[in-house]
Amino acid sequence: MVASDSQFLHSNERIDQLYSQDIKIIQSEEVFSFSLDAVLLANFVPESKKRHLKIVDLCSGNGAVGLFLHERLAGNVTQVEIQPRLAEMNQRSILLNQLENRYQVLNIDLNDVFGSIPKDSVDLITCNPPYFSNFETSKKNPNPYLAIARHEIKTNLNMVLEKISGLLKMNGRAYLVHRPDRLEEIFANMRELRLAPKKIQFIYPKENRNANMVLIEMIKDGKLGGVKIVPPLVINEKNSDEYSPEVRKLLYGK
Amino acid sequence: MVASDSQFLHSNERIDQLYSQDIKIIQSEEVFSFSLDAVLLANFVPESKKRHLKIVDLCSGNGAVGLFLHERLAGNVTQVEIQPRLAEMNQRSILLNQLENRYQVLNIDLNDVFGSIPKDSVDLITCNPPYFSNFETSKKNPNPYLAIARHEIKTNLNMVLEKISGLLKMNGRAYLVHRPDRLEEIFANMRELRLAPKKIQFIYPKENRNANMVLIEMIKDGKLGGVKIVPPLVINEKNSDEYSPEVRKLLYGK
Repeated sequence: MVASDSQFLHSNERIDQLYSQDIKIIQSEEVFSFSLDAVLLANFVPESKKRHLKIVDLCSGNGAVGLFLHERLAGNVTQVEIQPRLAEMNQRSILLNQLENRYQVLNIDLNDVFGSIPKDSVDLITCNPPYFSNFETSKKNPNPYLAIARHEIKTNLNMVLEKISGLLKMNGRAYLVHRPDRLEEIFANMRELRLAPKKIQFIYPKENRNANMVLIEMIKDGKLGGVKIVPPLVINEKNSDEYSPEVRKLLYGK
Repeated sequence: MVASDSQFLHSNERIDQLYSQDIKIIQSEEVFSFSLDAVLLANFVPESKKRHLKIVDLCSGNGAVGLFLHERLAGNVTQVEIQPRLAEMNQRSILLNQLENRYQVLNIDLNDVFGSIPKDSVDLITCNPPYFSNFETSKKNPNPYLAIARHEIKTNLNMVLEKISGLLKMNGRAYLVHRPDRLEEIFANMRELRLAPKKIQFIYPKENRNANMVLIEMIKDGKLGGVKIVPPLVINEKNSDEYSPEVRKLLYGK
């Protein structure tokens, strides 16, 4: 961190730098810090240098996913986050990286998103939503910031996919990271909402463990059938807590 | 092949032995020979030594999948195949392996299966159906035996899943091998037919290639949600046409 960066920080915050993406993200253990999920989701988005691309990052948290895309994608990025504290951190990270000409943050409820972004207007959406159903009995984080980020308290899978479908242009693409144990529910909701899966990658924590993340590329009004299951990604080396070479490359560059 | 085995063979047939399963299968290039798909599907079925298990193998071809299960599963196995030539080969393989006390073949159209096997009566079903949609424009094998085995000429995905659902007892399990490019369609049909996915394995031809097979365990009237994506299986070693150690073990034993 260079000295001048600290002017962007509040108390109990730090700046994490992702060397592979040449970007700095303001983090705070107290409210939210991005994890590998965000890195993997951003990496799953194919590069595009189209200047007029209209990009939206939903459930953006402190903005990590959208910010990681600053070199992969040209075009304008709108980041949507319900929690004021996180949206404000996101805004400061945009300034810290001097991306204010291409990035904006909307601190709104996802449920109201069509009031701020017109329907059928977006080319590309990324979303790292809360993964866990909000059952009465669910054990939730006592920290409300983290509980909202992880559990479906303010939104849920159906709402997320409904907003994705509503915002996208015909043949627009969205990129979602989620838990594979909800794959059936994800597919059922997607079908109902005219979102066709195109490419899927499963993420395995270790070689001999079940997948714990899934990345899904979907196309609005796309042809059903023909989904590609691309090669799996394994996070940790066998018998070790070291990251695999693929993940090290994503995090630290070559 | 021992000399006495040859009495079970017609012209242009051979006996393939799967050492890992201690079983001999009558094969013929002219009409059908099992492939790795059948071995992988049988291997995907968990062992069970329940004596009263009622097992059905649909689209059984020359009977390979069902026959591979002879040690993994106790209980009685009914194999259902529409093509008389293949059903008859299957029957001879049963005799060749002296399994006639536990195995029977029904040479019937899948569409008529409820006339021979009561609905809601089966504990466990395996099925290696034709993978490819039968579009007018589909390039089909000129050999009608192979065309019927590969393309949805006599049956289709919806019919297969409808018969699976109809035959299974509540909480009965089925094991299907199919092409991952039809995963969305498989899930949509399963949901409609009260079949919940429980466990899924993707098969990749090589480390850096997209999956070309998917194995699905499903439960009739099972709870939706909680599907497990188990570790992937890679068929060939990197940069080689040699089988991977996992596949060699399946084919040749330890």
